Amino acid sequence: MDNRPIGVFDSGLGGLTAVKEILEIMPHENIVYFGDTGRVPYGSRSRETILRYGKQDAAFLKSMDVKMVIAACGTVSSVAGDLGKGFGIPYTGVVRPTAAAAVRATGNGKIGVIGTTATIRSGSYRGAIAELDPNIAVFDRDCPLFVPLVENGFIADDEIVTRLVAERYLAPLREAGVDTLILGCTHYPIIRNIISQVMGGHVTLIDSGRETALACRETLKTQDLLCERAQEGECSFFVSDRPEGFARIAEIFLGRSIKRDVSHVEIELY
Amino acid sequence: MDNRPIGVFDSGLGGLTAVKEILEIMPHENIVYFGDTGRVPYGSRSRETILRYGKQDAAFLKSMDVKMVIAACGTVSSVAGDLGKGFGIPYTGVVRPTAAAAVRATGNGKIGVIGTTATIRSGSYRGAIAELDPNIAVFDRDCPLFVPLVENGFIADDEIVTRLVAERYLAPLREAGVDTLILGCTHYPIIRNIISQVMGGHVTLIDSGRETALACRETLKTQDLLCERAQEGECSFFVSDRPEGFARIAEIFLGRSIKRDVSHVEIELY
Repeated sequence: MDNRPIGVFDSGLGGLTAVKEILEIMPHENIVYFGDTGRVPYGSRSRETILRYGKQDAAFLKSMDVKMVIAACGTVSSVAGDLGKGFGIPYTGVVRPTAAAAVRATGNGKIGVIGTTATIRSGSYRGAIAELDPNIAVFDRDCPLFVPLVENGFIADDEIVTRLVAERYLAPLREAGVDTLILGCTHYPIIRNIISQVMGGHVTLIDSGRETALACRETLKTQDLLCERAQEGECSFFVSDRPEGFARIAEIFLGRSIKRDVSHVEIELY
Repeated sequence: MDNRPIGVFDSGLGGLTAVKEILEIMPHENIVYFGDTGRVPYGSRSRETILRYGKQDAAFLKSMDVKMVIAACGTVSSVAGDLGKGFGIPYTGVVRPTAAAAVRATGNGKIGVIGTTATIRSGSYRGAIAELDPNIAVFDRDCPLFVPLVENGFIADDEIVTRLVAERYLAPLREAGVDTLILGCTHYPIIRNIISQVMGGHVTLIDSGRETALACRETLKTQDLLCERAQEGECSFFVSDRPEGFARIAEIFLGRSIKRDVSHVEIELY
């Protein structure tokens, strides 16, 4: 039993889709969330830069005495697979749990992966799937406009702009006949319905936030680190740019309102 | 006469549209360009962050012994109007020269302004136009998706996605009946034709890169700082993220190929 909080970080606000899932399956846990809003986006940056940022993000969470660190960021998880080495506390990114769920889900052995440019370029999902089952064919594609579309509110199920962009990005995956599609970026569940319309209802969408939350619960359970708390857990939010405006956008991702203050962190100091 | 280079910086690559204009009207000048690709985009960040970044960018250029600093970045020019104070060398942002050109161009006294969220929120163009002619009506609108659309290549004149986004963003400016529209972000000239199609051919588009290059020449001329050089000037390029890939995208903005190497700068050290 361990009542310390779970630490979750992301390059920005997308990681809140993972927090939403954690709250749903482990409602009594406390959570410390750090969104690196001052340096977002990571997805288009170099490997070295992403690695340095990820280390600083994790160092901040450790300074908050968390019992586990989750990189709820497809880019960091992809580029810095071994970020957790030497942490002394459990660590997970989003890639391995999500790849495992996709391998369980596919019937025809054809899995699609979409994510930021850095995630796709890293080949992380390809590698993780090949380790689990080398016979599965992987078709991947970066969708760099999806994040700005989501962050600028082009998210309604009948949004024609997002639909047109999705059709263009997803055409090769449809043609390849994938029956399972990994949403390899935490922003993508927000436009899940549009993606599903384009891919067709027979394609199973795998949400990296959901799978990572499930993997987190499994780890905490196995290592006897789940909390013992009767009341609902609390979330603390930290960001590296100004906290104003965070609450409004955060609610899109979190699906609920934020009760506590949002604090600023000078992340370059970590 | 002064043969030192002109220093130009931007949050990323958009400022190269200003460099393109400088090369066209002052082909013998040397130019040092810094693109803060490791911290782009500025447009969605807080005032404090933008101010700090702008100061570091200018400090790097000064360390390269430039004779003038140009903030070819709508966001920095808007948020940090007095960045040049105490520089000891001439400084210009893009806002004042561009606002002046728009005031000269309008016939009906209705000017539209488009830019990043930070540029529009700052009210910089409104303020600069009001100083020049308080009777002019200004209609402004942020267009946060234009930068990602340009950077992801949605730039063909018949690109339906960009056209639909432009129609949505520009509708209030069309309805207001502006006869002049300031392209208040250095990325926007790349999709100039789409913007013109949506606004109608009777609306004069004012390009901030072009107007800033003209203002730079005027300043250098007045202060006797133009170079005396028979051969073509040279451009040096510096970026804060990895230099690979820079040349390919830079050519979109610059309209010509890059002959010299691109170097990396650790901008947080300035």
